Amino acid sequence: MTASRPDTPLLDTVDTPEDLRKLKTEQLRQLSDELRSEMIDAVGSTGGHLGSGLGVVELTVAIHYIFNTPDDRLIWDVGHQAYPHKILTGRRDRIRTLRQGGGLSGFTKRSESEYDPFGAAHSSTSISAGLGFAVANKLNDKPGKAIAVIGDGAMSAGMAYEAMNNAEQAGNRLIVILNDNDMSIAPPVGGLSAYLARMVSSSEYLGLRNLASKVANKISRRVHSSLGKAEEYTRGLVTGGTLFEELGFYYVGPIDGHNLDHLIPVLENVRDSEQGPILVHVVTTKGKGYDPAENSADKYHGVPKFDVVTGEKKKSAAGPPAYQNVFGETLAKLAETDDRICAITAAMPSGTGVDKFAAAHPDRSFDVGIAEQHGVTFAAGLAAQGMRPFAAIYSTFLQRAYDQVVHDVAIQNLPVRFAIDRAGLVGADGATHAGSFDITYLASLPNFVVMAAADEAELAHMTYTAVEHDSGPIAFRYPRGNGVGVEMPAEFKKLEIGRGRIVKGDADKGGKVAILSLGARLEEAKKAAAELEAKGLTTTIADMRFAKPLDEELIRKLAATHDVLVTVEEAAIGGLGAHVLTMASDEGLTDGGLKIRTMRLPDLFLDHDDPMKQYDEARLNAPHIVETVLNALRHNSAGVEEARA
Amino acid sequence: MTASRPDTPLLDTVDTPEDLRKLKTEQLRQLSDELRSEMIDAVGSTGGHLGSGLGVVELTVAIHYIFNTPDDRLIWDVGHQAYPHKILTGRRDRIRTLRQGGGLSGFTKRSESEYDPFGAAHSSTSISAGLGFAVANKLNDKPGKAIAVIGDGAMSAGMAYEAMNNAEQAGNRLIVILNDNDMSIAPPVGGLSAYLARMVSSSEYLGLRNLASKVANKISRRVHSSLGKAEEYTRGLVTGGTLFEELGFYYVGPIDGHNLDHLIPVLENVRDSEQGPILVHVVTTKGKGYDPAENSADKYHGVPKFDVVTGEKKKSAAGPPAYQNVFGETLAKLAETDDRICAITAAMPSGTGVDKFAAAHPDRSFDVGIAEQHGVTFAAGLAAQGMRPFAAIYSTFLQRAYDQVVHDVAIQNLPVRFAIDRAGLVGADGATHAGSFDITYLASLPNFVVMAAADEAELAHMTYTAVEHDSGPIAFRYPRGNGVGVEMPAEFKKLEIGRGRIVKGDADKGGKVAILSLGARLEEAKKAAAELEAKGLTTTIADMRFAKPLDEELIRKLAATHDVLVTVEEAAIGGLGAHVLTMASDEGLTDGGLKIRTMRLPDLFLDHDDPMKQYDEARLNAPHIVETVLNALRHNSAGVEEARA
Repeated sequence: MTASRPDTPLLDTVDTPEDLRKLKTEQLRQLSDELRSEMIDAVGSTGGHLGSGLGVVELTVAIHYIFNTPDDRLIWDVGHQAYPHKILTGRRDRIRTLRQGGGLSGFTKRSESEYDPFGAAHSSTSISAGLGFAVANKLNDKPGKAIAVIGDGAMSAGMAYEAMNNAEQAGNRLIVILNDNDMSIAPPVGGLSAYLARMVSSSEYLGLRNLASKVANKISRRVHSSLGKAEEYTRGLVTGGTLFEELGFYYVGPIDGHNLDHLIPVLENVRDSEQGPILVHVVTTKGKGYDPAENSADKYHGVPKFDVVTGEKKKSAAGPPAYQNVFGETLAKLAETDDRICAITAAMPSGTGVDKFAAAHPDRSFDVGIAEQHGVTFAAGLAAQGMRPFAAIYSTFLQRAYDQVVHDVAIQNLPVRFAIDRAGLVGADGATHAGSFDITYLASLPNFVVMAAADEAELAHMTYTAVEHDSGPIAFRYPRGNGVGVEMPAEFKKLEIGRGRIVKGDADKGGKVAILSLGARLEEAKKAAAELEAKGLTTTIADMRFAKPLDEELIRKLAATHDVLVTVEEAAIGGLGAHVLTMASDEGLTDGGLKIRTMRLPDLFLDHDDPMKQYDEARLNAPHIVETVLNALRHNSAGVEEARA
Repeated sequence: MTASRPDTPLLDTVDTPEDLRKLKTEQLRQLSDELRSEMIDAVGSTGGHLGSGLGVVELTVAIHYIFNTPDDRLIWDVGHQAYPHKILTGRRDRIRTLRQGGGLSGFTKRSESEYDPFGAAHSSTSISAGLGFAVANKLNDKPGKAIAVIGDGAMSAGMAYEAMNNAEQAGNRLIVILNDNDMSIAPPVGGLSAYLARMVSSSEYLGLRNLASKVANKISRRVHSSLGKAEEYTRGLVTGGTLFEELGFYYVGPIDGHNLDHLIPVLENVRDSEQGPILVHVVTTKGKGYDPAENSADKYHGVPKFDVVTGEKKKSAAGPPAYQNVFGETLAKLAETDDRICAITAAMPSGTGVDKFAAAHPDRSFDVGIAEQHGVTFAAGLAAQGMRPFAAIYSTFLQRAYDQVVHDVAIQNLPVRFAIDRAGLVGADGATHAGSFDITYLASLPNFVVMAAADEAELAHMTYTAVEHDSGPIAFRYPRGNGVGVEMPAEFKKLEIGRGRIVKGDADKGGKVAILSLGARLEEAKKAAAELEAKGLTTTIADMRFAKPLDEELIRKLAATHDVLVTVEEAAIGGLGAHVLTMASDEGLTDGGLKIRTMRLPDLFLDHDDPMKQYDEARLNAPHIVETVLNALRHNSAGVEEARA
């Protein structure tokens, strides 16, 4: 952090895009420079996504300068590159609250500003949403265009292709700006990326002098042409038919995305074009204008707080290993003696720890790009041919491949292993990235085994257990962040499928209260148990390990030897708690007065905050467990009888 | 049906592809003709998918003739065109059991044959799966190619694009055969389809004489070329660079898919190519060789039993209207006075009843192609711009858009309406098409309202309720097939959100048993109640209408006035039953000895069969409800105490 804020005299006069549009074109360079300084300074103090925003400073200025936001709907794909946009759209005074509790979101968010017409935090949604806006305006004969800004990485997702395939109906109401920085979080993969690289390398940027007229010419060419369909196609080939033109777009580019003298006239022409939809191919540099970012491998995609002058990132205190690395390193080790093990990531090699695996086993590591659907079915194909594939995907992103999980994996009972990172609440990334629903949507599937790791040692055992489990699909989830500091095992243990473990107390002897924990709430369960014991209530703790199959024998035993069972999990309704209740009611375990209570994520999308505070809001910390137990014990059957009268 | 089977002397000698490969090339025409007759006769007697299979008769013969199946892995996308494949791969003796209980599946299925390496029933999975097979063989240095046969409709799904984007690594181990019949179920939509049409219309089929050498030449051109990357790109443009080549494929085509003299040499060359991956563009006619199919609008995509000579389809007895038509017609009617209503279908206009809407309101009806992900976020964009969009998608296909439902709709609390057809078990289409999980995966989402219609009148009311519900997302599900025959209401009723209705009995007065029904099991609940009453057990029936929000007041009341509550729904674990149990345990309703039992779909993927038999297997018919109630009443607390001792 710097002692004083950067000097930004011109930016200080711009509170909204309306102010911006009063400036002269010649002033936009200075404004962009000030905006860049402001952004670096702000992210230096808060941490967050830096590289992406720096890459689109000029583009942000140009779009708001040329288009009539917010009536023209500007949609930033993924949204983490929208910090400059937030600064220019009335949120500068809160920009140093980014990703802090109560502060600005790290993504675009409808509730935050009318300039955020569509919240985006998962990738590749912008063209579909933009098309919705454009078509609604068309139906209502209203003015207003939709502008979707989408990165080349996000273009690799099938959803973007589906949207492009449908875009023609929007005509000139839809503009797609392809922000090609040859980089999403990791270097890009696949045929599309190679194609874009070929286009950029084989074209020269259009020259300044006659750029505007050339572009205008290009856009209007088809309308003046009297060629038939087949001839038009031939023409497309001769003049440089592109993948995008083949899908029905007018392609303009490539354009230097940091050169305002190019951007402004091109966007002006695009805005005024009678033709569309138009795709503008803009080439930018991630991290542009900040040397430490430009020179780093990931372009400072996401950063902790850092020193603006040196670029030095604030280190968090050394601590237990991150879950993702425990997974990646364990799998890499196991693969030394098992050449059937493969790892699949969808553009998240470091976030999932697959980078550790890839370093040791490059041939068996697959980054499929932002393509979870393909990734899961690709894994199913590998499994069907005898491999042992691990699909390492964040809980929230696995939602993208739900049908593939059901149709290609579960129904066929194929042994695909799912390493599900970022389970539970995730802190600064907020509701869009929370891993809330995976237990519910997986444990309802026949054939599936669903585990949750209570700590990093358990994660290692579960990884090993998954390797050895060849009879069907198996999933294991674990939280974002670092482990709890338990000793790592010298040897991996193969867990018995569907068996929990007693962590405290004795299931046979029993006691007043049994806490059935699934996943990383176990530490809170231990604190709660200590408090309950201090109040004279003997407490047993079971780490259930499995949401499916349930350890029914253990549940029966705990039901028989305790007055109250409390389930605890960092998951939405429908998870362990629902499965325990269902089994207990099927078997009539509660008919005799046994009390069961389930603790789970609340029926709310929780905003970004410190994870501990989020769990307080979710009422899933130790005090809440204690309170739940005490309430259950207080609630006597007389009370219920009363209600019946 | 014909009195006698067709005469098929050559086909009678072919039991497996091995037999086929012993034939002379000149015999393949006759074999194809016989295969076509056999298939028409078989489907005439069973009903099923006809047009797609007829379109690929020659292709099926050619692939098995040229490739070394089953070691070469042949994957039929969607799988419903695989009937000729089944006849040629040892399943001819069972071909007249297609889609019948205990008979052959209407799709490819791993458990059925080693010639079905990957089951497919949802579209667009074949390239991903094929890539998995190919890469596994590459890693293990094994021979064996993967051949994915995919229709032009299926190519519009993002998943196919994601897979193509990743295909280059497979080299010559992956062959994609694009079966272009300009038709999936409905006429195709979108840019890709227009592109393919341009290619076909602007190219001539390659001439017979030098076809093989030309293709061989084309495939090997790159390897002999010494051009650099940029030059190679230029060459691609000049010689006809296509969308597929831009993604890294070698493109061969278009080829007449019914001309064996063309297919055989081309596939031979493709098989022997050192280069790859290769995409072979084959043009076929859906319904080929059977006039009634070729001449019908949907090319006999899916048919009931029919008379082979006349093509006349067996009519099912007239009965209550199909749910899909009740939805489509209701929505069309409501849209007459509300121009914000839009309907979105993903390539299923008639299956969803959106065709009825489109006939009346073509401007506000959108067929997005096989693109559920895009469809849902497009709907979210429409909703954000003030429209009232209805996304009409089968339960099983909505799984394709789960992340969009969560991230774009639920988190933003946008009023997208989901009309979810084919909820519950679906009969002949089997496990892959069952709508089992939607209540579980939707009712766990904050902001969502989730309804299920008990009959066709309820569906009409729910459609109207959804129109009027502007405060957030709302979904309503209903079964495949016809309604139960209730009188249709003269006026639509706006249901109160989160309120059930008492269908039988009196909630205040109460009784012995309360059945809480959600959805179309209501008729079975009524039968069960009659039987229970005959045994002297007073029974109340509630149609809960809402899985979310629950009618908590009603549940509290029923809990207070009955000894046993039984929930019934045609949905997997995690639905109404789990939500009722969770609420009851939160509030301690069962602490005093109230018995709750939940009836739901079992933890199994149920094979195709008559729906009534499927529900018997699922134990969700009236006798099972009675049995569940009697067991619960028999289960006294003494028994539980015993277990505790």
